[in-house]
Amino acid sequence: MPVYTAPVRDTRFVLDQVIGLDRYANLPGFENATPDTVEAVLTEGGRFVAEVLFPLNQTGDREGCTRNADGTVTTPTGFKDAYRQFVEAGWPTLSGPTEYGGQGLPHVVMTAFEEFLCSANMAFQMYPGLTAGATAAILAKGSDAQKALYVPKMVSGEWGGTMNLTEPQCGTDLGLIKTKAEPQPDGSYRITGTKIFISAGEHDLTDNIIHLVLAKVTGAPDNVKGISLFIVPKVLVNDDGSLGERNAVTCGSIEHKMGIHGNSTCVMNYDGATGFLVGEENKGLAAMFIMMNAARLGVGLQGLGIGEVAYQNAVAYAGDRRQGRALTGPAEPEQKADTLFVHPDVRRMLMEAKAMTEGLRALCLWGALLVDLTHKAPTPEEREQADALVSLLTPVIKGFGTDMGYRIATDAQQVYGGHGYIAEWGMEQYVRDARIAMIYEGTNGVQAMDLVGRKLPAKGGAAIQAFFAMVGEEIAAAKGGPQAPLAESLEATLGELQGATIWLMQNGFANPNHAGAGAVPYMHLMGIVVLGLMWLRMGVAAQRQLDTGEGDRAFLEAKLTTARFFADRIAPRALSLRRELEGGADALMALPPAAFAAAA
Amino acid sequence: MPVYTAPVRDTRFVLDQVIGLDRYANLPGFENATPDTVEAVLTEGGRFVAEVLFPLNQTGDREGCTRNADGTVTTPTGFKDAYRQFVEAGWPTLSGPTEYGGQGLPHVVMTAFEEFLCSANMAFQMYPGLTAGATAAILAKGSDAQKALYVPKMVSGEWGGTMNLTEPQCGTDLGLIKTKAEPQPDGSYRITGTKIFISAGEHDLTDNIIHLVLAKVTGAPDNVKGISLFIVPKVLVNDDGSLGERNAVTCGSIEHKMGIHGNSTCVMNYDGATGFLVGEENKGLAAMFIMMNAARLGVGLQGLGIGEVAYQNAVAYAGDRRQGRALTGPAEPEQKADTLFVHPDVRRMLMEAKAMTEGLRALCLWGALLVDLTHKAPTPEEREQADALVSLLTPVIKGFGTDMGYRIATDAQQVYGGHGYIAEWGMEQYVRDARIAMIYEGTNGVQAMDLVGRKLPAKGGAAIQAFFAMVGEEIAAAKGGPQAPLAESLEATLGELQGATIWLMQNGFANPNHAGAGAVPYMHLMGIVVLGLMWLRMGVAAQRQLDTGEGDRAFLEAKLTTARFFADRIAPRALSLRRELEGGADALMALPPAAFAAAA
Repeated sequence: MPVYTAPVRDTRFVLDQVIGLDRYANLPGFENATPDTVEAVLTEGGRFVAEVLFPLNQTGDREGCTRNADGTVTTPTGFKDAYRQFVEAGWPTLSGPTEYGGQGLPHVVMTAFEEFLCSANMAFQMYPGLTAGATAAILAKGSDAQKALYVPKMVSGEWGGTMNLTEPQCGTDLGLIKTKAEPQPDGSYRITGTKIFISAGEHDLTDNIIHLVLAKVTGAPDNVKGISLFIVPKVLVNDDGSLGERNAVTCGSIEHKMGIHGNSTCVMNYDGATGFLVGEENKGLAAMFIMMNAARLGVGLQGLGIGEVAYQNAVAYAGDRRQGRALTGPAEPEQKADTLFVHPDVRRMLMEAKAMTEGLRALCLWGALLVDLTHKAPTPEEREQADALVSLLTPVIKGFGTDMGYRIATDAQQVYGGHGYIAEWGMEQYVRDARIAMIYEGTNGVQAMDLVGRKLPAKGGAAIQAFFAMVGEEIAAAKGGPQAPLAESLEATLGELQGATIWLMQNGFANPNHAGAGAVPYMHLMGIVVLGLMWLRMGVAAQRQLDTGEGDRAFLEAKLTTARFFADRIAPRALSLRRELEGGADALMALPPAAFAAAA
Repeated sequence: MPVYTAPVRDTRFVLDQVIGLDRYANLPGFENATPDTVEAVLTEGGRFVAEVLFPLNQTGDREGCTRNADGTVTTPTGFKDAYRQFVEAGWPTLSGPTEYGGQGLPHVVMTAFEEFLCSANMAFQMYPGLTAGATAAILAKGSDAQKALYVPKMVSGEWGGTMNLTEPQCGTDLGLIKTKAEPQPDGSYRITGTKIFISAGEHDLTDNIIHLVLAKVTGAPDNVKGISLFIVPKVLVNDDGSLGERNAVTCGSIEHKMGIHGNSTCVMNYDGATGFLVGEENKGLAAMFIMMNAARLGVGLQGLGIGEVAYQNAVAYAGDRRQGRALTGPAEPEQKADTLFVHPDVRRMLMEAKAMTEGLRALCLWGALLVDLTHKAPTPEEREQADALVSLLTPVIKGFGTDMGYRIATDAQQVYGGHGYIAEWGMEQYVRDARIAMIYEGTNGVQAMDLVGRKLPAKGGAAIQAFFAMVGEEIAAAKGGPQAPLAESLEATLGELQGATIWLMQNGFANPNHAGAGAVPYMHLMGIVVLGLMWLRMGVAAQRQLDTGEGDRAFLEAKLTTARFFADRIAPRALSLRRELEGGADALMALPPAAFAAAA
């Protein structure tokens, strides 16, 4: 049976020593994030997910969701009761705005807790995760009346929420949306169309589900400029907040998927359902992108969360399983065999997982802090800087983070040998669950194109130049100190990224296919640099604590060793990624489609 | 619904133009492999697997195998009838020895057909695949009487066969085997113990199953030197070949696995079952390795087979699905969107899959030819050379081939976006099925250790030196010709491999953990070099045909483009792999196991 312990110590190290949460105590919301509060959230939250949600992870996978003949959906055994406990304990409210019943804690604290949720039960986490995304969109673009009517019960978790973008003919290319919205005399709209892949589209956890739906208003342009965003409650809400009539939206079926079986992935049929415009007509895409950006950071966190729990189990197995002998001679001659820990190739996978998960944790929490600063930093300049940086990092956190999550889960499964392929051990579920994170909220290829095609050139490359300057400064600062080798390694990978950036600028404008062909290698190259930066920061922080004698010495020394492992064995990948990118699009785009067909 | 066409044209190109099968026509068995016969095998075989076995792939996955209360196992609907057709058409007999009812065709021809089998239905293919492995072991080490009694019905497919190595406490480390063999007065042995993960251990396809079982004879050393190999028929066979009593071997349960659901993975209980020694007591491991080596090449072929069918489907989807526009402007302005083919990142995945599958096909067929030459080359020197080379290549074909198979399947699934995650499209099954090939027959980490720890140092490094010399000669020969850029690319990657080899020699002896830590990067680096060699050979062959005006011009030009893609975008990975290897074992092995544990 799988095991999971929320990595509170490591999270605290990042929050306290790397990010320095106390430096932001003067910002709104942060004043509540006292060390004691954060400690309580992480410790109690970690315990809750481990005790209540984690035991439902494997059973939820095995049982899956069931669509009943009447169109209702039953979640796996235990989910409903766990959700009730989740709501009663107030977990959904952590970072919700206080004016709508939230606790107003910083996003970065919520993010730390969210990682634990993802590790413990990703399929479960998606229910409140989608609600939070829908809430964010209403908060950003909804009217005051809409906020007052819907947000409090979404913040509390009493109601759920969803995002409805995809249709059978339209995924990435939202201009192809066919769902129609006909204006009604009372100001509402009649929504008609079919949406697919709607996570948490129908379930038995809440009395109501607030669907956010993209549709085209009658007469609107039939492209991305004609998309509007609507609130379509499953059950219409009376002005006093009580539930009214059942709306004309139903779950037509649920999908049979590779993983995340505990989450209901629905085909949603809108048959003249009553919808309420959010913001202005034809401005729906911008509103949806508010949800999408938050959601993308959340999906990156899923990569980390699954990677972490898979890694923890591989560690447990490596310590239990005895097989073969150390190459340097028996480590425990009195036993019939040594543990898997003696084998360098097992270590390779465990160290890579350790370096990646700890690096991604630092990255995700930094990204979350930047989201906070985007709204709360004292000056407009600081807010803009944070926004530019997190916009640049978002596709990396999502794309690189989930690619690594899948890799870690696959490696962790590999540590188990044949047992990793057997369902009862739980490892193969992590691989199946991790896989979706590379696909939804924009495939990782779409993330890479967002990075290379939108984020890099934005404002004349201001964000990437600011990023280069920041990394360069941190390298310079560390070069004179004991972590100079980490700084030098980062300097080398930064050089590769800068070279690749120049190559893209020189070649991508002339032939945009060069940019498209280099997008994924660039995203991974940037991932290596960003994680190198995290490891430099963690190395410097660990060294500082070691020097002052605070903290757990073994933990801090392991940080330095892992930082060195990253520099020795992961950072070199930057070299090849740049070369692959510089291989360009010529051979890649040359063949006619017919040349790909097999001939008998 | 997935599609599959056996890639006969490409197989013919490799056999005829790259390997030059006609040059071996004077060898035993090859005289029968006339162009017409090979064409018939590939065309008819491709048709058979596509029409009979491929339609059962998805249903077999969904239905899985069932263990009945009486211990029998029922294969998925249609498997039994398909197996009957498979046997009646004589497919199992292709490369079986003529003296036991086989057709005596070269292994390389059988291998070409096996790839199609793996693509069409890997779970099905494993039943005859295991039988062939068991047959090979009896042929190599069994007595004449054993061969006469068992082999004809195994070659025909009337009986099945299995390999029984793994036990609950013992996978890679076979010294830990507990299964006992007590000698009986009649020369037989009573076999008692539990074997797990036995593929095709029990099923309803054949009247009998010939289990090959590793066990320790009473009093034998309790380590790898005390392992013997036994034939344990499910049903005892009378001297006249008729079936006798049911033996005391039963299927205790079947595993619930990530994939290959159509194959029964059994816990086998031997309760004093009657077994017959194969070869000598305590020499079982050597006999089993004969099976293992053949099986490892076969598993590499599974990586290719799954990669190929996944790739074919990604190509089909990319042509059907319209989403977005080419970065260079609409390719088909009259349509609402362009096909996925216009997107460079989709191309990146398709071209990588094309370069990898075609490269692996050339490699697997070359490896199979070397197996033939090991037995059939005219001089002892040539036989030895072939043996040394295929021994070196086997872990690469298995380890690199299956890692790439999984990568291709994952990428092919990615091309489908969200639809790739939905079971009915069939893509997620390919990922799940491909995953096992990285684990069984020795995990890919074990393959890498076999390469670095055994194959490299064997005979003072003779095999790798011979390989370097051979590659160097082919580079030199091509450098003056039109494929010089391919030769130069290969020269660069060969340089990285040679550098890595020297590093291993200089550091691996002093500290074997350096060798262990570098094993997987080395295996992948060698994979890149070997595939580069295949692409040089294919490029030269395609150019030759283009120059003489024979062959399909578009097909040959696509070969040259794909070769260039390999050189531009895949070969550069050699750089990082060498650096990762040279990162060594210091940081990798430094942490105490406790440092890996998460702390709340």
